[in-house]
Amino acid sequence: MTDHFYDIDTAEQEDTLASWHDGSTKRAICNFVRRVSSQDSPDYIPPDERIAAFDNDGTLWCEKPSYVQEIFIIKYFHEQVALHPELRDVQPFKAFVENDRAYFQALSIQEVDNLILQAVSDVPQDEYVQKVRAFFQESLHPHYQRPFTEMAYAPMLELMTYLRQHEFQIYLVTGGETDFVRQIAETMYGVPRSHVIGSSVRIKLETHHDRPLLVRQKSMVEPLNEGPGKVVNIHVHIGQPPILSVGNSNGDLDMLLYTEHQARPHLPLLIQHDDEEREFAYDHGAEKALQAATLYDWNIISMKRDFKHIFSTAPAEAAYNTTR
Amino acid sequence: MTDHFYDIDTAEQEDTLASWHDGSTKRAICNFVRRVSSQDSPDYIPPDERIAAFDNDGTLWCEKPSYVQEIFIIKYFHEQVALHPELRDVQPFKAFVENDRAYFQALSIQEVDNLILQAVSDVPQDEYVQKVRAFFQESLHPHYQRPFTEMAYAPMLELMTYLRQHEFQIYLVTGGETDFVRQIAETMYGVPRSHVIGSSVRIKLETHHDRPLLVRQKSMVEPLNEGPGKVVNIHVHIGQPPILSVGNSNGDLDMLLYTEHQARPHLPLLIQHDDEEREFAYDHGAEKALQAATLYDWNIISMKRDFKHIFSTAPAEAAYNTTR
Repeated sequence: MTDHFYDIDTAEQEDTLASWHDGSTKRAICNFVRRVSSQDSPDYIPPDERIAAFDNDGTLWCEKPSYVQEIFIIKYFHEQVALHPELRDVQPFKAFVENDRAYFQALSIQEVDNLILQAVSDVPQDEYVQKVRAFFQESLHPHYQRPFTEMAYAPMLELMTYLRQHEFQIYLVTGGETDFVRQIAETMYGVPRSHVIGSSVRIKLETHHDRPLLVRQKSMVEPLNEGPGKVVNIHVHIGQPPILSVGNSNGDLDMLLYTEHQARPHLPLLIQHDDEEREFAYDHGAEKALQAATLYDWNIISMKRDFKHIFSTAPAEAAYNTTR
Repeated sequence: MTDHFYDIDTAEQEDTLASWHDGSTKRAICNFVRRVSSQDSPDYIPPDERIAAFDNDGTLWCEKPSYVQEIFIIKYFHEQVALHPELRDVQPFKAFVENDRAYFQALSIQEVDNLILQAVSDVPQDEYVQKVRAFFQESLHPHYQRPFTEMAYAPMLELMTYLRQHEFQIYLVTGGETDFVRQIAETMYGVPRSHVIGSSVRIKLETHHDRPLLVRQKSMVEPLNEGPGKVVNIHVHIGQPPILSVGNSNGDLDMLLYTEHQARPHLPLLIQHDDEEREFAYDHGAEKALQAATLYDWNIISMKRDFKHIFSTAPAEAAYNTTR
């Protein structure tokens, strides 16, 4: 660490990172960004290599009481049962209809991805996109009763803005389904769809009436974008490790280690959900990541200690306002 | 076409597109670029959606008498036989050692990809990258006796510069192996490795001495980046169709049709290798693409008619000068 070399412009920080409490985490972030982006720094890294990777669920937006993607599927399954009542006695529809929380709270993000396959497969890509957009337009977060597009953590949005001001290339590296997350990435985070690396449903090119048509298949592209899959897909899509990455769970550990083990300066960051009052407090599924953070002395972003607000007070631009 | 709306600034064209003869192709390109990038145009497309996709072999650099990637493999196989003389009687080493042109000239880009697997698999990614870089440092094109990094078509380099001047996002969409092409994409074309979409060898994340290590496997990521695979991979990596694409063979036809069949303005371009004197004249493998070009009235780039020079006269910056 070279804190003494790169004094922080407090005014600039406070301007962009207004929702962060002053403290060691904010200080570490600002020092790192200054170190790699100052032309006169011995640790200068050119903008093309200034890659930042953000997990999404639990890192950029709220993942409790359920993954947003899971809520989307539940809604879709209810609609299917309304159309075809005989599905009421068949799993997984049965669990969804009976609101069997034990059944679906035990699901991993991979299992959710597989349910997405059952929910919406063999449909044209465009039809799926319309379903996802309608969901974001119509649905509210079950706990906060606000649109999901307002469920981003305000300090994390500021961090992305701060990194962009310093010419970082920002990627979402999410266990969620790529084309689901793409529908909100541009509006919520300012991340273009080309910078969303997720778990992808296989796409097949078909021809309908002499025109090409992308159709969603019943299988996922290997590897799923979780754990080691995040590192493999970062290589496939970006071709180099991020110098800054942020995650909140064991599924982000490989990405954080990939960020750690490189010759260039790097900053792995782990978000800890420790704010029972303003959000949800849980370490379940983050045990290994927290152990590694201690071992490598990573900076932990404590939501309780580091965030002045959790969510933005102003309503976010709604996802369906996007013109694409 | 709206030629009459967007008068071409001839001076600007001649500056950037100096190696293009004036004619209908150059005119069509300039008109299209002006139409989609002028703020006051009814056909204006914002920079984020101004995607241009370029095939590589035969579109950006010379693919005759053999794919560059094939020449790399031959060289590697010779080295292997020198180390292990017993391989001399085993195919495909035998054909390579005996310079059996019939054997390897019959290969498709997919078969070349599969030979790459045999040549360099189960090796760490970094080791492969070193081999590829050494090849570009040491080898000359068998016909022109110049480094392969000087084998880009000068007018195509100018076209990429011209598109960048108008804020297009440029991607290579190549049948070649992603990490092979990545080693020259930045230096030759100014295309960052994150914008190289190719046929990819499967990568596995292993741990050596507690550090993550990317290791190349013996299989390819499906689909290979040729024919319909180009469209699928454009969706996976970019998430939207290109508005401008350039190819030269049947393997590019699906990408050109994907460019054609969209509501936004679009410009599919097909390069025809018709200059026997300065390069190589061949239509083999481009028959269907040429038929489609006639059917859809696409602009054909004739190397003979449209290119003032084929190659740059100044030596290109050598690939091994790249610092990464």
